[in-house]
Amino acid sequence: MKVAGKHYRSLWADESQRAVHIIDQSRLPHVFEVGTISSAEAMAEAIRAMRVRGAPLIGVSAAFGIALAAARDPSDESISKASAMLRATRPTAVNLAWAIGRMREVLAALPPSGRRDAAWAEAQAIADEDVALNEAIGRHGLVLLEKEHAARKRPVNILTHCNAGWIATVDWGTVTAPLFMAHDAGVPIHVWVDETRPRNQGLLTAWELAGHGVPYTLVADNAGGHLMQRGMVDLVMVGADRVSRRGDVCNKIGTYLKAAAARDNDVPFYAAVPTPTIDWALEDALREIPIEERDGEELREVRGVDEAGKPASVRIAPAATPVANPAFDVTPARLVTALITEKGIVRASEKALLEYWPRHRESKAYLT
Amino acid sequence: MKVAGKHYRSLWADESQRAVHIIDQSRLPHVFEVGTISSAEAMAEAIRAMRVRGAPLIGVSAAFGIALAAARDPSDESISKASAMLRATRPTAVNLAWAIGRMREVLAALPPSGRRDAAWAEAQAIADEDVALNEAIGRHGLVLLEKEHAARKRPVNILTHCNAGWIATVDWGTVTAPLFMAHDAGVPIHVWVDETRPRNQGLLTAWELAGHGVPYTLVADNAGGHLMQRGMVDLVMVGADRVSRRGDVCNKIGTYLKAAAARDNDVPFYAAVPTPTIDWALEDALREIPIEERDGEELREVRGVDEAGKPASVRIAPAATPVANPAFDVTPARLVTALITEKGIVRASEKALLEYWPRHRESKAYLT
Repeated sequence: MKVAGKHYRSLWADESQRAVHIIDQSRLPHVFEVGTISSAEAMAEAIRAMRVRGAPLIGVSAAFGIALAAARDPSDESISKASAMLRATRPTAVNLAWAIGRMREVLAALPPSGRRDAAWAEAQAIADEDVALNEAIGRHGLVLLEKEHAARKRPVNILTHCNAGWIATVDWGTVTAPLFMAHDAGVPIHVWVDETRPRNQGLLTAWELAGHGVPYTLVADNAGGHLMQRGMVDLVMVGADRVSRRGDVCNKIGTYLKAAAARDNDVPFYAAVPTPTIDWALEDALREIPIEERDGEELREVRGVDEAGKPASVRIAPAATPVANPAFDVTPARLVTALITEKGIVRASEKALLEYWPRHRESKAYLT
Repeated sequence: MKVAGKHYRSLWADESQRAVHIIDQSRLPHVFEVGTISSAEAMAEAIRAMRVRGAPLIGVSAAFGIALAAARDPSDESISKASAMLRATRPTAVNLAWAIGRMREVLAALPPSGRRDAAWAEAQAIADEDVALNEAIGRHGLVLLEKEHAARKRPVNILTHCNAGWIATVDWGTVTAPLFMAHDAGVPIHVWVDETRPRNQGLLTAWELAGHGVPYTLVADNAGGHLMQRGMVDLVMVGADRVSRRGDVCNKIGTYLKAAAARDNDVPFYAAVPTPTIDWALEDALREIPIEERDGEELREVRGVDEAGKPASVRIAPAATPVANPAFDVTPARLVTALITEKGIVRASEKALLEYWPRHRESKAYLT
């Protein structure tokens, strides 16, 4: 999408095929800065530090991380080592394991001498496919928003949590693709953007929506239930870091609270989900997904800018304050109205999912 | 309660009867500072700026505001003007209107010459009664926590939202009274403290619990549902700014999200409520309570301390960012397990409430 009038992807390969450029998301929305990553180690650091973030983009980033490792040393040992390192950066999103698995499958079939170009091409293919997935999700989501608008004859109010925007993917975004397309098609919408503590990724969503001219309002994470009670939310639409074969949605911490309130108010709850986010090996997400516990300093210290607009931070709680900082939660399928996928809008149940992805009827393989 | 070993109330009358001392809560937990208020206007400013805050303390503060006005000018006009000004500071908490109504009733029966001393005595009585109310709530809550511990034979995990602590009252606190008493009685407890964006009053609760040695963990507002799903919350206990005769609980924004998740997980949800917080004139809190909309800057700018420990703030969103900042929400009685009152633990229903407060069977008066 566009930043100050110029089209960007959130990550793109350097022509040299020896480096990858990223938008450094740890500095957004205050500072727009492009970083250059030229090793698997640097890519692992970028994922860990959330310079690149969002389940789909993490997958693509890891794929390029493997390609960078293959460019330096295409041996089995090198690929294995890079895979393990990249795999360990973040535990929750399935796209990471999915992309690494796909890269390894391609490279294992080739002699080391053929791996460098193949790895680069495969990582690029994963990136391009991600764009196509989001575009397709956008088209299905657009139909949904058009219907909501036709039924109401007023702007459709969508509440979203965290950032499932274009910078969480390579382009378009899972949740933002329908929003951008609706806006472009003249369907009036308004988006309630959850701040999304502790890392405030809602500010990224606000930055993206503002950049595209979509009307929005930033709210504290605490406000969503109140807005639903007052009829001010027509639907909730969130992204996902991992979806089980039953349709349980693992997403940013706090998503489940919105889903519970949405059910209490009969507000539909949708997750925008590309295929690589579905973990077919997973039955019960609540029991089986490892939830990342992040550094308590993320909560104790808040980053922003000072009066002069320079990056600054304040401590809101002393370093000794006991803190728990789980990064994700699981919304059980029973609270999910449907999944907006690139194949269409699918009920959140194993039966419905397998109708769209019949090859996973038997196997629970890929990742195991 | 104690601050650095010395006993404090959150507000106390100066011996001169011409001023009131307050703990300036807008600077806590980073800076402990006592302020002096010597006019009704200054008290109104302190309430508006949340130097004094918490429904019970706001009521007591307004009572002393009237007493300060009566000391300067005991005429009907002066009392009326001060009442209207103080009443307009915050729209949601009922204690404010309750305390002002009580002061006016006492003063209206007296000639202006007798009002100064009477007003001071009545404000002091309201303050002392608040302490007694919280102590009684503490004793009933303690029994509840003892039972929970006896049933589990491990520390009881309590989740709380915002600050219904001793500094939100004159002393003890509505929610913290049971917690302090349980801790003192050797009943092992652990408290999950919601940060409570946008004003982060959870930091006040953390400061109070730490000051008394009660084990606690600070969490983002987003985390509570996840903790409940994992069996890590035995009960939710919150304060209230206004409770309807049906038992609907109006409290800090975000409370309702916790109540909805608590129901989804069969976790009991309690509100600690002294009588002055019950608005007998109110049937349906969701329709009838005016919800305060506060300045969007509270969300856009975060206050804390810099590296040197000095008060500082950072901007997390540009001043032009559209923001909605509702300060309270309503948890319908159907989601409230019970109210912990000074008279005992009461089911959240009109029938149960009227059994404890039979004089409100007919009248819906007092405030109207």
